[in-house]
Amino acid sequence: MPAAPTGRPAATPNDVALDRVRSVQPVLVDVAPAIDVVPGLRRRMILTSGPTMPWSAYRGGQRTAVLGAAVNEGLAADLDAAADAFAAGDIEVAGCQDHGCIGSLAGVTSASMPVVVVEDATTGERAFCTLFEGETPHRLNYGVWNDAVRENLRFLADVIGPALGAAIRRTRGIPLLPIMARALRQGDELHSRNTAASLLLLREIVPALHAGAAENEALVGYLTTGDYFFLRPAMAAAKLLANAAAGVPGSSIVTSMAMSCRQFGITVSGLGDTWFTGPLPGFDHYKLTDGHTIDDAEFMGGESIITEAAGLGAFAQTSAFTLQDYQGGVDAMIAANADMYRICHGESPHFSLPYFGFRGSPAGIDVHRVVGTGVTPVMDIGIAGRAGGQIGAGMARAPLEPFAAASAALNSNPVPEGR
Amino acid sequence: MPAAPTGRPAATPNDVALDRVRSVQPVLVDVAPAIDVVPGLRRRMILTSGPTMPWSAYRGGQRTAVLGAAVNEGLAADLDAAADAFAAGDIEVAGCQDHGCIGSLAGVTSASMPVVVVEDATTGERAFCTLFEGETPHRLNYGVWNDAVRENLRFLADVIGPALGAAIRRTRGIPLLPIMARALRQGDELHSRNTAASLLLLREIVPALHAGAAENEALVGYLTTGDYFFLRPAMAAAKLLANAAAGVPGSSIVTSMAMSCRQFGITVSGLGDTWFTGPLPGFDHYKLTDGHTIDDAEFMGGESIITEAAGLGAFAQTSAFTLQDYQGGVDAMIAANADMYRICHGESPHFSLPYFGFRGSPAGIDVHRVVGTGVTPVMDIGIAGRAGGQIGAGMARAPLEPFAAASAALNSNPVPEGR
Repeated sequence: MPAAPTGRPAATPNDVALDRVRSVQPVLVDVAPAIDVVPGLRRRMILTSGPTMPWSAYRGGQRTAVLGAAVNEGLAADLDAAADAFAAGDIEVAGCQDHGCIGSLAGVTSASMPVVVVEDATTGERAFCTLFEGETPHRLNYGVWNDAVRENLRFLADVIGPALGAAIRRTRGIPLLPIMARALRQGDELHSRNTAASLLLLREIVPALHAGAAENEALVGYLTTGDYFFLRPAMAAAKLLANAAAGVPGSSIVTSMAMSCRQFGITVSGLGDTWFTGPLPGFDHYKLTDGHTIDDAEFMGGESIITEAAGLGAFAQTSAFTLQDYQGGVDAMIAANADMYRICHGESPHFSLPYFGFRGSPAGIDVHRVVGTGVTPVMDIGIAGRAGGQIGAGMARAPLEPFAAASAALNSNPVPEGR
Repeated sequence: MPAAPTGRPAATPNDVALDRVRSVQPVLVDVAPAIDVVPGLRRRMILTSGPTMPWSAYRGGQRTAVLGAAVNEGLAADLDAAADAFAAGDIEVAGCQDHGCIGSLAGVTSASMPVVVVEDATTGERAFCTLFEGETPHRLNYGVWNDAVRENLRFLADVIGPALGAAIRRTRGIPLLPIMARALRQGDELHSRNTAASLLLLREIVPALHAGAAENEALVGYLTTGDYFFLRPAMAAAKLLANAAAGVPGSSIVTSMAMSCRQFGITVSGLGDTWFTGPLPGFDHYKLTDGHTIDDAEFMGGESIITEAAGLGAFAQTSAFTLQDYQGGVDAMIAANADMYRICHGESPHFSLPYFGFRGSPAGIDVHRVVGTGVTPVMDIGIAGRAGGQIGAGMARAPLEPFAAASAALNSNPVPEGR
């Protein structure tokens, strides 16, 4: 064999970071109550989306959702009593990602709630996400708390979680990358659209239902109505993928993105666990239901934008032209998706985009490139209304500030040559 | 209310024909042995793809498939004895569409074979198609006859057909248009790609499996492996849709397209049951497996091109960019799909194309427009090899001759004004 070429450039920190994503193999291994599996979760603790803030900073629908979760756990008799308990420090609030969780919208995660357990078969790393609440407008994570929400959460905890967990354990684990890669060829971008992936997952679960358990009927009903079931496993898998790039000195690659009701934040490979935060996103395009205007929209938090950090969602939106009414039309979607290649270090080794001739989806958001181009990430997000519930969806645009701050932090503390 | 505008032009025969398609509602109502449901089918008769030809005209893989079907039915001891019986007229051969059937590839359909029964809820019209033989390379319809083929046909007739029929009857019928419309948003074009639709159908069937029957396990295995199951119900539904336009005096709309091993043929609304035939198609683009060349390809018949006549398949190929390696790439697919609007009278009232901004798919192939433009229909077809089995797939191009002949026939016998 010839000797290795001597002129070959050394791998950059970003090459190293992105290469680590290659070996991640997320597998859905279980559904279990959060308290049994989430590291460091306590009974008097409610996790919620976004960088952890002091209790007093939570507001609106996200505050209602956190309070509702506390009541649901039996930690307080009603929302007022729960608010007093948080203020007194008798109940804690913390960001989902401090505990390996990833939150959808408000992202409330508490002891009794069943969570999907997604494990990297290569490293054993785990990520967790609560279950889709179903097609009902009464969803805690959209800032609604009432008897219907409570009843639905009980149904998920008492019936769906145990039955689904049993079925998944019988499969001995469902590898998620094949489903996700395939779903991108079936009209999903795995953030705002998970229709095909939910069906592909059902196909894996159905053969495991034949133990004849009575609760299977409810489970099949849950899995076969609604098309968003898969978003939760997709988020947990995306967290494992994005986080695999973390901890490389000098790397400017984004390893997480998250929102609370007040902030948009990112973490960056070479900058540890520090959240770089900025104002909430704006919208490039959106569509609202029932005569709502954008003034009715309220940010209640949201960490499903981890999918974009993994090269999915808006970074794969040419796979889901069906979303065009929410995203400014087919041409706008093509342009936005193509633009994301300008701010990424490379392409996903796992996901490819049919419309771009099976090119890998843009992956490895580089904060320096964001600053250099002035182009910030686009994100396919659901829109919650001030009165609670979902009122639409759209293509949001991240703020520049967190990327600029992270870029400056890296520049002010460069990694020595050759490290 | 204002009076209707007096200057409104009268509906043309083609308007009338295409409008009839609007009310068709294909429903999958049963799976049953062909002999029990197919009108006029007899035990000593084998149906096969394409306009009916004299026995001596069948050749190659299609001939082998017809002979194999006869042996499978116990009508002869082996292929040679079967050939003698056909030659002597002891066994009949007929075109599928003479009996309301629609054939995939060779399309052999005989007494014991289970067929999907698709019924138009509006008119009660029915169409029939055999079951997908599975992922095996040993498929009778690709011209293979051996013990593995025979065993698989028995499995379909003895296990899958009865279990699937029972499940479908329990559902009280599965409307197919919602599944088909949705599949076009999930990366299927419903001819060469049926991945999403097969899953969507599974979703409808799964809840009907909970009667706990032992054979359900085999059925779930059949339905959850392979992605082509849905092509057969799609073909039967397409036949009902395309045929709804039939019988309008003066209408130049194509109501069926079919191939045998020798001919490509069409029927036309204003021209009754007459097949207008021409030479076999060529290929605009294709991809073959395992070092095969196009000289290894053999036409063994095929009526799945009824999907194109209904505004699906190549007429909806922008919904399935994943097929790009077989179809000349994304740009070629967009151009070919757009071109089909030039030869169609209108747009499908049932199917819309996300890439074209949800425009209805081109529907109602008009033989006069084909002649006027010189553009003939494109078709997404599987390619069989001389040695049997599938060796690839591609975008085929219909010959001009049948369209020219039908156009001339209409012109020589015009419908009187005002009829």
